[in-house]
Amino acid sequence: MRIGELSRRTGVPVATIKYYVREGLLPAGRLTSPNQAAYDDTHEHRLRLIRALLDVGGLSVSSIRDVLEAVDDRTQPVHEVLGWAAKGILGPAGVAADPAAAAARDRVAGLIERRGWQVAPESPPAEALAEALAALDRVGHGVFVDAVLEDYADAAEDVARVDLEYVGRHGSVEDMVESVVVGTVLGEAVLAALRRLAHVHASARRYGAAAVPPAADGSGAHSS
Amino acid sequence: MRIGELSRRTGVPVATIKYYVREGLLPAGRLTSPNQAAYDDTHEHRLRLIRALLDVGGLSVSSIRDVLEAVDDRTQPVHEVLGWAAKGILGPAGVAADPAAAAARDRVAGLIERRGWQVAPESPPAEALAEALAALDRVGHGVFVDAVLEDYADAAEDVARVDLEYVGRHGSVEDMVESVVVGTVLGEAVLAALRRLAHVHASARRYGAAAVPPAADGSGAHSS
Repeated sequence: MRIGELSRRTGVPVATIKYYVREGLLPAGRLTSPNQAAYDDTHEHRLRLIRALLDVGGLSVSSIRDVLEAVDDRTQPVHEVLGWAAKGILGPAGVAADPAAAAARDRVAGLIERRGWQVAPESPPAEALAEALAALDRVGHGVFVDAVLEDYADAAEDVARVDLEYVGRHGSVEDMVESVVVGTVLGEAVLAALRRLAHVHASARRYGAAAVPPAADGSGAHSS
Repeated sequence: MRIGELSRRTGVPVATIKYYVREGLLPAGRLTSPNQAAYDDTHEHRLRLIRALLDVGGLSVSSIRDVLEAVDDRTQPVHEVLGWAAKGILGPAGVAADPAAAAARDRVAGLIERRGWQVAPESPPAEALAEALAALDRVGHGVFVDAVLEDYADAAEDVARVDLEYVGRHGSVEDMVESVVVGTVLGEAVLAALRRLAHVHASARRYGAAAVPPAADGSGAHSS
């Protein structure tokens, strides 16, 4: 198909498609004449993936380029690629070197050991967790971590189990890698939105909401 | 304290502090002479909160301004403020009007009804969820949603319950509002990092990892 048809099918303007090609996110079309290129279904699919990572995942153009390079790299063994999803998307971690950061790192190492997780404490998601815990500590909400960390870890294990079951269903490594990327980035958006929905419901039950009638069981001060 | 001391304590450069004051994120110091201002602990605390929302939460300067305005607005009743956290941080939702979006909205409405959540289907987190589900559908991973949505919703309910218990512990509305903001934004970063850690562990068990010895129970093809 011509670039105009690709634009029509995906809703992405022609100028934006050309920008993605220049930035190396989207492979160039096959030249059919000196100034005309043909695109196919793989371009359409890739374009939808770029838009999803950009609009819903909130990734930057340069992060998307890194992610797609890894998707296209067939030389990596499956477990490396799966582990990579955490690396490539998180980017280089930068935990500051203050007492809050040191305490947070110890805490993450303790959590990993306690749960028997086969993860290096210096891996990018472990560093990202330490940075988030340190940030909570610095704003005086370190006690939030005490209150929620184990329950959060339980929930993360449950979610990761169903994610991996989904990934495991894909036959080819190519499909599997894409499903990891999609599941990591868009799954995070799904989980975050669900958590906020559940917050609204829980606070409506607990504190009463203007727009919604109170729960039948009363003020709900001790209800879940 | 002078601005240099505030900078030293928080690690935020003086020029950056001045920028936050100009942008309305941080209240100006109390003028002690025509070109000298005094800052106190409330400035230090606010500055740490700004950095946490920026660095770990990944919010933009304009989102942070909106969030802090709501934190400072004492006229709102508690449940409005709690519900607001989802609104203010998510920003205006923009779900496209294609068949994937319509199907996703129906799906979200069904989920809310099935779970008995007291949330309007047109509320911002519901729209954000619909947008994420539609994006998954558009990239051909709609089946991911079938596979994981109910388990994700279970996990979100568990997490929201412990979040609300934490928020409920705070006596003053001021503290409560801040804990909602911090818990929403930084809690999301904590949960996302934990999910990625749990992914690495689950894939190491399932597919074997180069850097980590295999689990004692063997290949782990059917282990959680």
